[in-house]
Amino acid sequence: MSNMNKPPLVIIHPLVLISVVDHYNRIISKTQQPRVVGALLGERKADGVIDITNSYALPFEEDPKDQNIWYLDHIYNETLFELHRKININEKIVGWYSTGSRFKPNDIQINQIFYKYTTTPIFVIIDVHQFDPLSLPTEAYTSVDEISKSGEIVQNFVHIPSTVQAFEPEEIGVEQLLREINNVDTQSLSAKAEQK
Amino acid sequence: MSNMNKPPLVIIHPLVLISVVDHYNRIISKTQQPRVVGALLGERKADGVIDITNSYALPFEEDPKDQNIWYLDHIYNETLFELHRKININEKIVGWYSTGSRFKPNDIQINQIFYKYTTTPIFVIIDVHQFDPLSLPTEAYTSVDEISKSGEIVQNFVHIPSTVQAFEPEEIGVEQLLREINNVDTQSLSAKAEQK
Repeated sequence: MSNMNKPPLVIIHPLVLISVVDHYNRIISKTQQPRVVGALLGERKADGVIDITNSYALPFEEDPKDQNIWYLDHIYNETLFELHRKININEKIVGWYSTGSRFKPNDIQINQIFYKYTTTPIFVIIDVHQFDPLSLPTEAYTSVDEISKSGEIVQNFVHIPSTVQAFEPEEIGVEQLLREINNVDTQSLSAKAEQK
Repeated sequence: MSNMNKPPLVIIHPLVLISVVDHYNRIISKTQQPRVVGALLGERKADGVIDITNSYALPFEEDPKDQNIWYLDHIYNETLFELHRKININEKIVGWYSTGSRFKPNDIQINQIFYKYTTTPIFVIIDVHQFDPLSLPTEAYTSVDEISKSGEIVQNFVHIPSTVQAFEPEEIGVEQLLREINNVDTQSLSAKAEQK
């Protein structure tokens, strides 16, 4: 792809972040897997901005000793996307996510798979261990063709501006949820439940 | 089922509520459908408490003039559950949800479908328009057999105590997210994005 297709901004919606943290916590607690990977769904708007509104986990394995050995279940991806389309025809596959804090050597290879589903796959790295409120826990990238010193075409990731933002109904939902969670005193959980 | 199987408490996790609100907002804004319906996934713990940790939307249609005419795509449900099991083998189908504020006449019929997947299906009504922070926007039910005046066995819903609660990592995630969302000033969105 050329740099012309590079989106000016990627907007990541709250549901995506919560789903990814959830996916990570459930998988990592039960396996030796160092990271989790999944598909990102959303829409490219007329101004080129990409809204990432949904996601799902993908079966993914890699050899910790040799990252050239990895497996992503693309049949699973295609089946789940077909099902998802029946619920929401407007959301397309716009790219993929991985938990972590920096690139892995095989990320550019994994990214290749997503050219099958979208013209400009977005790769979002989500740092589930990053709790600094002044810094967003996500970084977005897309890949570009570059000419190496030896004259070969190689693919590299380039950074894209990204932000976490909710549509108004989502924002109300998240705010309300936080109040609810803070209201729940785990010590008196059953007592509260009785009151209902 | 007998009342013996009635769980003492249903715990609904944040991801479920955010997903359902999201499902509702996306479907309702684009169709004439009055409500949305989906599957609830989770685990029954040793003490009988049910943790509802995940959910997905289901294709559902009903005739607004005759609620005996409705369609829920159970093949879709079974296919999506099989895919979900590949990611998380511990989460089972524990019941279903509907948006709304009260029962519909066909709910007890829809509930029957879920006996195929679990011994005690839980039905959760989620009031997406309820924004009173002192009252949880969810009510949980299960069905019991009762003897009618004419001596017939009829199924009715009975209320189960429920609460919204997060595991610690989820809570940190939701709190962080709220800070992020509050930090985003939509007026200066592109300026903020440039700074990254």
